[in-house]
Amino acid sequence: MSITQKLATSISSSSSSFLAPSNFSSRRQNVSLPTKSVSIPKCVATPQEAQTAYKTRVSRNENMAKLQAGYLFPEIARRRSAHLLKYPDAKVISLGIGDTTEPIPEVITSAMAKRAHALSTIEGYSGYGAEQGEKPVRSAIASTFYSDLGIEIDDIFVSDGAKCDISRLQMLFGSNVKMAVQDPSYPAYVDSSVIMGQTGPYLKDVEKYGNIEYMRCNPENGFFPDLSTISRPDIVFFCSPNNPTGAAATREQLTQLVQYAKDNGSVIVYDSAYAIYISGDNPRSIFEIPGAKEVAIETSSFSKYAGFTGVRLGWTVVPKRLLFSGGFPVAKDFNRIVCTTFNGASNISQAGGLACLSPEGLQAMQEVVGFYKENTNIIVGTFESLGFKVYGGKNAPYVWVHFPGRSSWDVFSEILEKTHVVTTPGSGFGPGGEGFIRVSAFGHRENILEACRRFKELYR
Amino acid sequence: MSITQKLATSISSSSSSFLAPSNFSSRRQNVSLPTKSVSIPKCVATPQEAQTAYKTRVSRNENMAKLQAGYLFPEIARRRSAHLLKYPDAKVISLGIGDTTEPIPEVITSAMAKRAHALSTIEGYSGYGAEQGEKPVRSAIASTFYSDLGIEIDDIFVSDGAKCDISRLQMLFGSNVKMAVQDPSYPAYVDSSVIMGQTGPYLKDVEKYGNIEYMRCNPENGFFPDLSTISRPDIVFFCSPNNPTGAAATREQLTQLVQYAKDNGSVIVYDSAYAIYISGDNPRSIFEIPGAKEVAIETSSFSKYAGFTGVRLGWTVVPKRLLFSGGFPVAKDFNRIVCTTFNGASNISQAGGLACLSPEGLQAMQEVVGFYKENTNIIVGTFESLGFKVYGGKNAPYVWVHFPGRSSWDVFSEILEKTHVVTTPGSGFGPGGEGFIRVSAFGHRENILEACRRFKELYR
Repeated sequence: MSITQKLATSISSSSSSFLAPSNFSSRRQNVSLPTKSVSIPKCVATPQEAQTAYKTRVSRNENMAKLQAGYLFPEIARRRSAHLLKYPDAKVISLGIGDTTEPIPEVITSAMAKRAHALSTIEGYSGYGAEQGEKPVRSAIASTFYSDLGIEIDDIFVSDGAKCDISRLQMLFGSNVKMAVQDPSYPAYVDSSVIMGQTGPYLKDVEKYGNIEYMRCNPENGFFPDLSTISRPDIVFFCSPNNPTGAAATREQLTQLVQYAKDNGSVIVYDSAYAIYISGDNPRSIFEIPGAKEVAIETSSFSKYAGFTGVRLGWTVVPKRLLFSGGFPVAKDFNRIVCTTFNGASNISQAGGLACLSPEGLQAMQEVVGFYKENTNIIVGTFESLGFKVYGGKNAPYVWVHFPGRSSWDVFSEILEKTHVVTTPGSGFGPGGEGFIRVSAFGHRENILEACRRFKELYR
Repeated sequence: MSITQKLATSISSSSSSFLAPSNFSSRRQNVSLPTKSVSIPKCVATPQEAQTAYKTRVSRNENMAKLQAGYLFPEIARRRSAHLLKYPDAKVISLGIGDTTEPIPEVITSAMAKRAHALSTIEGYSGYGAEQGEKPVRSAIASTFYSDLGIEIDDIFVSDGAKCDISRLQMLFGSNVKMAVQDPSYPAYVDSSVIMGQTGPYLKDVEKYGNIEYMRCNPENGFFPDLSTISRPDIVFFCSPNNPTGAAATREQLTQLVQYAKDNGSVIVYDSAYAIYISGDNPRSIFEIPGAKEVAIETSSFSKYAGFTGVRLGWTVVPKRLLFSGGFPVAKDFNRIVCTTFNGASNISQAGGLACLSPEGLQAMQEVVGFYKENTNIIVGTFESLGFKVYGGKNAPYVWVHFPGRSSWDVFSEILEKTHVVTTPGSGFGPGGEGFIRVSAFGHRENILEACRRFKELYR
């Protein structure tokens, strides 16, 4: 911001036209007549203030300073906007950010609308809910996703989404832990770790932060890391089906992972946000693996299950048997974090979540998921027909396309420039993603088909 | 949990009945027939597991261990439940937690219901919104509450509530800052500071955490701290109208506060969650004070404005001119925090917020606020008639009643035991609250009247 701009904003500092309860009629005027305030005396900034910007004496958090560039997805959105400025008439198709596009089934939205209306009645009004979520929602999550797995209702914490819970988990762990993460993986794990001060600085040569174990997942190892090569982490973030590679771990692999955690006394944070996309018999929950309740937390979300990316609802499971080294239950501290830093998910979103888990809701969710899985097949087929090696897709709404020897950001730019299709560069998910592009299957069918036509034109 | 219980839960570990997309009809059966899974082979825990609880090697976060007891309000809820167990037939009235009770005006809930229904249409569906909030909502907040104050749309970050933003601000500041806080004050400031590692251990003798400046606010100093007695803090949390004392700072006092921050290079986090309850001409925003944009952040909420305690919507203002000591804009780091640890407020809640700020919505909000203010007058009148010294009430929905020489928790228990009315003990807000009780004015009229009748019986 230029100094002139700064002056312009400071000059307008004056008393607020904020509504005062004692004064109904003039307030309504304020709202409808934005010019009313012209007569209010202005406070003029002193020339001194305008010439040298005032700085506080508070130091910037050095962990924030370690972060590289912006968070990946806003950065993609920024590049998309820049592209639109350059080509205002282009029909841009977004297969980048992994954002759901299909309408939410009515059985679910009706339940939310009903809850909203009920808030206008004496009987239906509710204020603060339990920070951990409404009991019927916790109960429905337990019985739908964890039936027979020994997960109890009070092990489940309902939230405004898995991404938000990941940060709350990082607050819980604090700064004195060392984490391991699949490479590539969803960037929120690493970025929140950096923010919490768990890492060293960013090492440009290897494109990694210090004090994080990057567990390489690539076609050579079947996208499951060689656990014997990493030095003991406290926390292992593990996402399956994986974002971005789309790989779903097998029962044998997860058994190996749980055993590794047991042997090393590590805690697994298992992200199952895409489990509903699994076609095969891969486990949908880490708690299907015997012994996992002693070493694992699971986080998941309605975002990709029910198109709730904007509605916001997720959950995290912290079993009572998961204990810190001194024997203190992790769940007790997570509960304290949730109660102190959060105030529960929106009651309307929770009504939606409950409807998702009704028999009709479950079927409706599956139909939308089935639609996205057809999209996935179309994208996989397209890239395979063009001779690319393609991974993912079968158990996840993401297609992981290999461009050997090329820079992901170069391929991202080439595709955007030549086809007006937004994808996500693999290297945005970690150095192990270099040479790959993630194509999201979230889109209207005609956009998926059109994008595939353009891919064929570009790469035929 | 007993070892037998542990065994019982571990015995049921087995494969999940989680929905598989390939298998529609049997899935629906699963959902409606919870007994289906009986035939699934069980995984039996080894006797070894049952006898000695497995512990990970991850140390408990030492900051979490510093926290005293539970977060205040869940603790109050716990005591309320215990009371109900003891007196199952008692008509308990809750004037404790500060939870809104009156229905949300229909103009607001209709907008939310409409948005919910629209999510079932192609045109009305929206997925991920901007992490910072929808533009029309940011714009309406700017023009309604900050008109003429030089606050721009992109200075405003829409959130799921002020409490959640307080924690995000603490993540932004990190562990190497020293904070000051009004004593007494809303416990989320101190507790989130402890969690982030900004403090020393809890000092039992003074009932304070180390490395926090407690700024005593009491009747003697008109509930405004003597700033000359505190040693320089980096961050000053300041809530006005104050929770719990109900005191609203005057323009002169806030001018003094801003000057103090300027002189010391401190950052003010100004919590204006109760500003709509101000009756007099006290400032509604810190940004009414000239120069505040260089030293202050403001956080606020629709919770107490529109009964959104369960709907969840708030906002935080971080002016671009607020700079760290090195010149880096605080807003840029806050934006990074919001993008990394949060995914935006629910789109349905945002539709509600927008409706709140329409002319009809503003008037409807004011009517509900007016109702609670009448409640406040009834409570103030009751305690005054009983000879108590009463503070707050005029500019806030909280009445701060003095019981000189008595323990707050004792008075809390006495009132609960003898009148079945839940209040909040003043000492729960810091040592400066000892000897006081906070009575919330959020309640149905008949409950407020009945509670006051019982107070009169107890203390006449």
